[in-house]
Amino acid sequence: MGFLQTKGEIYKAVEDVDVGPNSNQFYLTDNVKAPRMAGFLVKVFAWLLETPIFGSIMLYFLKRNNLIHKLVTFAELQDSPLYVPLHYYEGGKEEENQSGASPREQVRQALGCMVAPKPLYSFSRWTILDYSTAYNSKLITPTKVMERFLSAVEHSSTPSMQMSFFINFDAHDILRQAAQSTHRYQKGEALSVLDGVPIGIKDEIDCMPYPTTGGTKWMHKVRQCKDDAECVNCLRSCGAILVGKTNMHELGAGTSGINPHHGTTRNPYNIGRIAGGSYSGSAAIVAAGLCPAALGVDGGGSVRMPAALCGVVGFKPSFGRVSHSGVLPLNWTVGMVGILAGTVEDALLVYAAISGPNSSHHSQTALPKLCFPLLKSPKPIPNIRLAKYGEWFNDCNEEIRVCCSRALEKLQDNYGWETIEVTIPEIEVMRLTHYVTIGSECSTSIGRELEKLNKDEVGWDARVALSVYGSFSSQEYLNAQRIRNRQLQFHKRIFSIADVIVTPTTGVTAYTIGNDTRHTGELDYINGAALVRYQIAGNFLGLPAITIPVGYDNSHLPIGLQFIGKPWDESLLIHIAFSMQALCISQYKNPEVYWDLLGN
Amino acid sequence: MGFLQTKGEIYKAVEDVDVGPNSNQFYLTDNVKAPRMAGFLVKVFAWLLETPIFGSIMLYFLKRNNLIHKLVTFAELQDSPLYVPLHYYEGGKEEENQSGASPREQVRQALGCMVAPKPLYSFSRWTILDYSTAYNSKLITPTKVMERFLSAVEHSSTPSMQMSFFINFDAHDILRQAAQSTHRYQKGEALSVLDGVPIGIKDEIDCMPYPTTGGTKWMHKVRQCKDDAECVNCLRSCGAILVGKTNMHELGAGTSGINPHHGTTRNPYNIGRIAGGSYSGSAAIVAAGLCPAALGVDGGGSVRMPAALCGVVGFKPSFGRVSHSGVLPLNWTVGMVGILAGTVEDALLVYAAISGPNSSHHSQTALPKLCFPLLKSPKPIPNIRLAKYGEWFNDCNEEIRVCCSRALEKLQDNYGWETIEVTIPEIEVMRLTHYVTIGSECSTSIGRELEKLNKDEVGWDARVALSVYGSFSSQEYLNAQRIRNRQLQFHKRIFSIADVIVTPTTGVTAYTIGNDTRHTGELDYINGAALVRYQIAGNFLGLPAITIPVGYDNSHLPIGLQFIGKPWDESLLIHIAFSMQALCISQYKNPEVYWDLLGN
Repeated sequence: MGFLQTKGEIYKAVEDVDVGPNSNQFYLTDNVKAPRMAGFLVKVFAWLLETPIFGSIMLYFLKRNNLIHKLVTFAELQDSPLYVPLHYYEGGKEEENQSGASPREQVRQALGCMVAPKPLYSFSRWTILDYSTAYNSKLITPTKVMERFLSAVEHSSTPSMQMSFFINFDAHDILRQAAQSTHRYQKGEALSVLDGVPIGIKDEIDCMPYPTTGGTKWMHKVRQCKDDAECVNCLRSCGAILVGKTNMHELGAGTSGINPHHGTTRNPYNIGRIAGGSYSGSAAIVAAGLCPAALGVDGGGSVRMPAALCGVVGFKPSFGRVSHSGVLPLNWTVGMVGILAGTVEDALLVYAAISGPNSSHHSQTALPKLCFPLLKSPKPIPNIRLAKYGEWFNDCNEEIRVCCSRALEKLQDNYGWETIEVTIPEIEVMRLTHYVTIGSECSTSIGRELEKLNKDEVGWDARVALSVYGSFSSQEYLNAQRIRNRQLQFHKRIFSIADVIVTPTTGVTAYTIGNDTRHTGELDYINGAALVRYQIAGNFLGLPAITIPVGYDNSHLPIGLQFIGKPWDESLLIHIAFSMQALCISQYKNPEVYWDLLGN
Repeated sequence: MGFLQTKGEIYKAVEDVDVGPNSNQFYLTDNVKAPRMAGFLVKVFAWLLETPIFGSIMLYFLKRNNLIHKLVTFAELQDSPLYVPLHYYEGGKEEENQSGASPREQVRQALGCMVAPKPLYSFSRWTILDYSTAYNSKLITPTKVMERFLSAVEHSSTPSMQMSFFINFDAHDILRQAAQSTHRYQKGEALSVLDGVPIGIKDEIDCMPYPTTGGTKWMHKVRQCKDDAECVNCLRSCGAILVGKTNMHELGAGTSGINPHHGTTRNPYNIGRIAGGSYSGSAAIVAAGLCPAALGVDGGGSVRMPAALCGVVGFKPSFGRVSHSGVLPLNWTVGMVGILAGTVEDALLVYAAISGPNSSHHSQTALPKLCFPLLKSPKPIPNIRLAKYGEWFNDCNEEIRVCCSRALEKLQDNYGWETIEVTIPEIEVMRLTHYVTIGSECSTSIGRELEKLNKDEVGWDARVALSVYGSFSSQEYLNAQRIRNRQLQFHKRIFSIADVIVTPTTGVTAYTIGNDTRHTGELDYINGAALVRYQIAGNFLGLPAITIPVGYDNSHLPIGLQFIGKPWDESLLIHIAFSMQALCISQYKNPEVYWDLLGN
């Protein structure tokens, strides 16, 4: 189709691009050319895309109209590809985490960072320390808590609520774990502060005795779950109670969490709204008080987006920091295990439990030692520099803009931290190239299994996604990796003058679940692009990132603020998030849907 | 085209594949379904492939018939991709080559490994030490040598010879360098043993004052050569005389060295035969006595194949050992600067000069220290284990098989080294996936430049290659990288029981240059596959490899034996090659076309 050929973007050499505040780089907003579709329209669209010849022509024009041809396929650039965003660690050998500290020991160290346990019942949402304190002081037993948990989950599934939190949970297995934990507390032999604490696991991570569906109807039929994932095993060794497999967008291939097979997870702050995807279920259960923390996988904001929409903390460590062993291989170079938690402290405790040397990611580099953040100090670290790209920061709805700007002002006013205006070039290009990357990898990883299935087993919106995922050429994939290299260099320059980058977490708050989405899912690339707008650097460049709630919009829907850190510098990131939380926590509101598992 | 879909190969888990001698792994010979073409047929084929719709259909069937669909596109495998064959080095920090030893210092250290200079004139082909000794003892000056060199090159270009050694050389620049070197010797200030020694540079590596054509008519018009490549700069700092840009297959995209723009380099052992590609020119000039050594780039055997066909040493170090800065980016993950030389000692001296920390490749790993091999010792290292895969080793023409087997017996008989029978699974799969990889990367790297050109500037066989290169999907590229990961694991297991792998270097000796190839080049995928049969592990897995001449066939054409080493273990590899050379050197024969630049 040479006659239709698009003129490709000519990219300047990285060193010739200004990342300062007065850069002449143009901020390109999303250029999404695809209308919202649901119901019958999605079916027709999926059918057409799957047609041999007409489908190819449609895909050609979809890629062309959405600027993939101009910005990726036919791009002219000099950069070589960067395939894996694993950062070379330059520290000395002695700093590597070769000592093999156990998850329990790491949790103990993390606990040492925290301020002394506050009096019980001070939070409306219980923390890990609240659970541990209640168990240790014999106020309640893990068994009693898990009985309440099970009745809450039952309640959440009634026709009037239909929260669709879980894909699978096994009451018998949960009570068995609770009884063991109760027994340990009775003997005074609790394994760690996590002992008896309920933790949810995204159904993309292997956790016995459950199948791993990845939000599908078929994945578990072609891939057996034989063992706990390494991160789950770490939590188990700390005594945590694994309460089942939480709901997610089918294959993680969407941002809404609308799932035609397992139901659409509803937002505890407003059950008519989405919880956000792909990791909808666990954000919702943490918000609703069913668990203080949960594990997810963040391949394109899948932990941080639902966290922001559900008003909880979402934390994605550096690429390679947590083992990927036992996680569905839906992609190889962008996905990372992440944590959802009610508070920054709880995110830190779970992070300490699951972080460690990771054979699969680390074959080519040394791993820096896990550092614990400064939380106990009476005063935050002085002179922290927060990079802000104004045009990007403000590319969100008005209420988010105002709320996030105020939060940033609080940091400046209370701690004297400095905001540095920067320009991050080619952000929209990064969104497109990340999409080409995750799509190509997903399609390669599961393409063969999919073709053996009856198409009816796959949801309609996932079929559309898979058609697009399978359409990329090797040139498009390789050019995406060259853009990855450019972006990494841009970010390195920004991190040479700033400690973290600050953004809103999403461009919109939780939007309404349409009545037409139940059977077909929904295609809403415009809202999707607004949700992922600030997510991509965390995945495509492997940078650690954390979102914390900083307020609510006029509909009482939560708003998140995100900090993106330097590679391996989770410690500073958590310190900053903790400092932000300290200024906001007094205004946190409980959601509409909420259970109090420790109370009376 | 689902109705035509090929059933994909189902690959067993790596750990379930036996690499021992009695493995049930089937040795799949090349399955090349493409007839030899030259002349008008190549033009028709290129035209058809470039047709929008019919071309796509032809490419579909080409890929299908040549098993790419079965073995790559639709393959079922569990492995994750390995994108870059850079081996993580586990040694201690203190071993890294951070000391920044200069090229001259490294050459001095390498010289220390060598046995004392032999009496002059003992070799029919002069070595670097012979040049250095002659200069130091005032027998001759660099200026005199380079005058002889220029008259030899002039002679080689006469209508009766038409050797087509060079794409560019500048007599004035050469004589200027020679005069400077002569002056240094007069003052007793030679820079190193390489001072005044002529060295050729493949026209894929930047070397001032020449343009870098990559064997094309157009590359230098769209990409300016502004500086010496880092490896060339190293040689220049040692005083070497850079004698111009040697001929190569257009874009390195072929194995014959037949070049319609710059002429077909002829084999000095028989001027009716090819010199081998892609690095034809420098293999030929080393064989013909014009240079003791030359630099090439080995992306798929491009250094080792012509070395074997022209009866010289070809050495490709580990991926990342030599800087790629200033080398045409025709691919990113398989090409490596390599060395052609008359003897193993000369390959070592040039290797010492050009090896060093390499910023572009080494961002993710530490670089092990350059180790120098044991050459001085009266006896070779005992107990070296040579892995041999019998069916593969024997998949070459009868004369090569007999000659290489005898050479291997000599090693056993003279040094007591042990041959270990192994099975290397999926070798043909590796050839295909390497092709997908180098093709996709080449097409991405230069695709944009190419589309701006008048097609007439590109040779016909290169147009066919580029059509195929541009046809791969992201799934094919990614599956190729998954196969790369499998193969690396197979090779790791073999290297756990053996020190090197030994093979013939090529499956055929230099074949005849057809009269029909002059204007269109030639498509001969069957001979091509036989030439690259033993090359791929060196490129796809980044392993060091060396070929040395071990004899001649009945037509007096040279035969090479190849050793493939463990990552970073060039030192042992050179020691083994040196020990092999010691047993063969007395039988080395001079080629038909030969110049004696130091003699009378």
